[in-house]
Order: sequence, then structure tokens, then C-alpha cells
Amino acid sequence: MLKLVLLRHGESVWNKENRFTGWTDVDLSAKGMEEAREAGRVLKQSGFVPEVAYTSYLIRAIKTLSLALEEMEMLYIPVYKSWRLNEKHYGELQGLNKAEMAQKYGDAQVLIWRRSFDVPPAPIPESDERNAKCDPRYKNLLDREIPRTESLKDAVARIVPYWQVEMAPMLKEKKNVLVAAHGNSLRGIVMYLKNISREAIVDFNIPTGIPYVFEFDDDLNLIKDYFIGDPEVVKALMEAVANQGKAK
Amino acid sequence: MLKLVLLRHGESVWNKENRFTGWTDVDLSAKGMEEAREAGRVLKQSGFVPEVAYTSYLIRAIKTLSLALEEMEMLYIPVYKSWRLNEKHYGELQGLNKAEMAQKYGDAQVLIWRRSFDVPPAPIPESDERNAKCDPRYKNLLDREIPRTESLKDAVARIVPYWQVEMAPMLKEKKNVLVAAHGNSLRGIVMYLKNISREAIVDFNIPTGIPYVFEFDDDLNLIKDYFIGDPEVVKALMEAVANQGKAK
Repeated sequence: MLKLVLLRHGESVWNKENRFTGWTDVDLSAKGMEEAREAGRVLKQSGFVPEVAYTSYLIRAIKTLSLALEEMEMLYIPVYKSWRLNEKHYGELQGLNKAEMAQKYGDAQVLIWRRSFDVPPAPIPESDERNAKCDPRYKNLLDREIPRTESLKDAVARIVPYWQVEMAPMLKEKKNVLVAAHGNSLRGIVMYLKNISREAIVDFNIPTGIPYVFEFDDDLNLIKDYFIGDPEVVKALMEAVANQGKAK
Repeated sequence: MLKLVLLRHGESVWNKENRFTGWTDVDLSAKGMEEAREAGRVLKQSGFVPEVAYTSYLIRAIKTLSLALEEMEMLYIPVYKSWRLNEKHYGELQGLNKAEMAQKYGDAQVLIWRRSFDVPPAPIPESDERNAKCDPRYKNLLDREIPRTESLKDAVARIVPYWQVEMAPMLKEKKNVLVAAHGNSLRGIVMYLKNISREAIVDFNIPTGIPYVFEFDDDLNLIKDYFIGDPEVVKALMEAVANQGKAK
């Protein structure tokens, strides 16, 4: 049985402050680092042996992967990084507090910004210093590949080709794959793999630090998918993510 | 000017205990982690911007690279890992204390084992559990590629092709390169780049945690090489490495 495991990074400093992060390169909090290590221990205990791993260009995902692999005693496996696995770009919302936004604009508008399929937040201005064009890590991208905001649809459009061209071929070669990335980039992959509708994806949340396993047959048909962890804990964590965007 | 920077991993738990390590996968000590971070800070301050990095399959080198890149805010660059950059295999000596060996066999014999060009220590037995054949990370190697002991000559024979085929082409593409590896795998590269004789290499030591810079012209002719750091400190560190193998 071929396995793909998706791991959403643990708590970042801005998750803790409940701020929109997106492409902002925010570090893990101490709790986030411990979540990553615990995910590694859980994966090791489950017997999962990845032969290759993927992550984004953002430190919170890269460190989550390193900490998990260290616990798994598998730091030596190849790790590929791509901007295509970055979090959805949150445009002008990046840096703002989610609850404050909800108080100002209402839960419904914030849920649209956070979770609607095709409504992007307002873009950051071209001249804004947060424009990823100013960041050397994106210098090899085409201008039109560098977002100033993104809907989930936009993010899916850059993520799915990476799945198809880089990751799926590894499974075809019988290599188990581990991916450490972000809430929305992982939702993009799940949406594609499970053929989830654009309506249903709005209510689908991935908990942080809980390994999400996909099992495939040799023809890469999805056989089953499940979280590794206590079902009650997983449910509570998914609800916590869903509630982040609500006014206190 | 094209730059290659070699970084020897900081203190490992076994360096601290003055034991032969080789292919044993020993972690960094707390001091070793701080050395790696400091090297990253020094490299950042020097203005060095690598576009690609290399390391071995061993955790002390991989973590040295990660910690340095984190300080440089460049965790996103591609990192390639290869067994070819592993430390020299120390055969039966792996796990033994260097000073104890010197008391027993004399400084001269230990210097030969540590530093001679073509005398390998006694091999570990084929059936020994330390045989790297038992370690899944080496499962894609040919039987004859997996050492049970190595002279520096043996190590150079596996390292130089990696330099030629993987690393030098990056410099040809005008990409600066960072390598985090081990005392002897880095000596192998330096011996090749500087055309050092097999007699002279015995007395050449690389200090831990001090970035060693090589500058090349566009035809990959070596222009100059130097350590980044206070010259007195570098000299003291090189002497400390040379003295590890002497009886107390």
C-alpha cells in the first residue's frame, strides 16, 4: 500500500496571535515546535517510512518537517521545497488579527475571505514592501506567478500541477511521500485527491500537527484516508480551526 | 566572484567525549548547535548568499546546515544530501576514545589512523551490527560502495566524483555553494581543490564551525581561500584539532 502523509505545520507566532499570515515568513512558536516533534513521534510509532518529503518556501513548514524527520530518525531523506506549497496569499489581510476583522466585518465576511473558493482578499499594492517580488527567494518566478492575493482557487491552480508533476510520480515509483505544508495548500491537495466540491471545501478544515494519511493502490486510486490520532482530539482540533475566524 | 564555503559541523556528543565517530550517526552537543548558529551569523554578516547547499547523510552535518541556514534566513534554498559527503569511516575504531587509543598504541599510530593518507583502521566485521548495510539509509548503495573502514584515500575516491559531477556544475552555473560536512570529507575536497600532496594533507586540519571560503573565477580557477574569523582564534582551533589524538 502506497502512502502519502500530509502534515500541517504546528502553531506559528502569528497563529498564536490569531493573525492572517499567508506568505509572511513567520516562525513556529515553542508549542508549534513541540507539535512538529510529536507528529514525528506519532508517525514513527505508526511505522510510516517516507522515502521523500516536500515542503514550502516558508520557515514554519520547513522547520515542522525537519523536527518531525528528526524524531523519525530520517533527516537524511531527500527534501524538496517549492513556493507552490506555500500558504494561500492573504493579500491586504496579512498581519491583521482574525477576531478583530470579524468584529469589524462580521463572521460571514471573514469566513468568505478565509475559506471561500474563489473570492480573494484585496491585493497588497504593487509597491508594498510585502510584495514577494522584493524577496530573493522568489527571484526565479515569473512576474505573473508571484501573487499579491489569492483565492483558494488561485492557490489550487499552482498546487495541483506540483502534485501531478513532482509528487504523484514518486508514489508511482512506489515511494511513500511526506508533505509538511499549510492549511490551505494542503486543502488544495485534499480537494483534488478526494474530488471535494468548491461548496464542501469551505467547511473542511485540517488540524495542525495531526498526520493525515492517504492510502493508494498501485494505480494511484485512493483507497482510504484518515488522521492518525484519537478521533475525539482530531474532531476538537478541526473545530478549533473552524472557530478561529469568529468574533470572541 | 564565485564562492564555495565549507563548514565543518560543530561539536558532537562524541567529539566532546573525544571518541572516533566516522559513520556513527551521533547528534550535535548543545555547544555544537551554538557553533552552527554562530557560523550562520558570521556568514550572513559576511554577505555570503548561497543558492544551493550540500550535506551528508549524518545528522550532525544536516543539523549544522539547518541551523546555519536558519540564522542566514535562507532555509528555503535547495539542500542536497549524499552519503558521499559522510565522514571517513573509522572501522573498528568507531566508538573508541582517542586519548585512550593514544595511551595504548602511542600518538604516532593514532596519528596514522586519524590522518595518514592510505592506511585504513581495521574494518568492522561483515556481521557487525554497525555495518552500514543494516541501515536503511544506505539501501540504494551497491554492496561495494558501503565501507567497513576507510583511509583518507578511500574517502577522497568517493567524495571527488561528487564534487565533479554535482557541486562544481553549480558554480559553473554561477551559483554560490555552501557545504556542511565533516573533518575528513572536507579535507578530501580541500586536498583536491588546492592540489595538496598526500604527505602535506596529514598536517592539515579544518577547525569546527569556522566558515572556510574558496573564491573562483568564471573558469573555476581557484583565486584564493581563507577562513572567516579572527586569525588567532582560527589558528588555536586548528591546533586543538591536531592535538585531539595525543595522549593527555
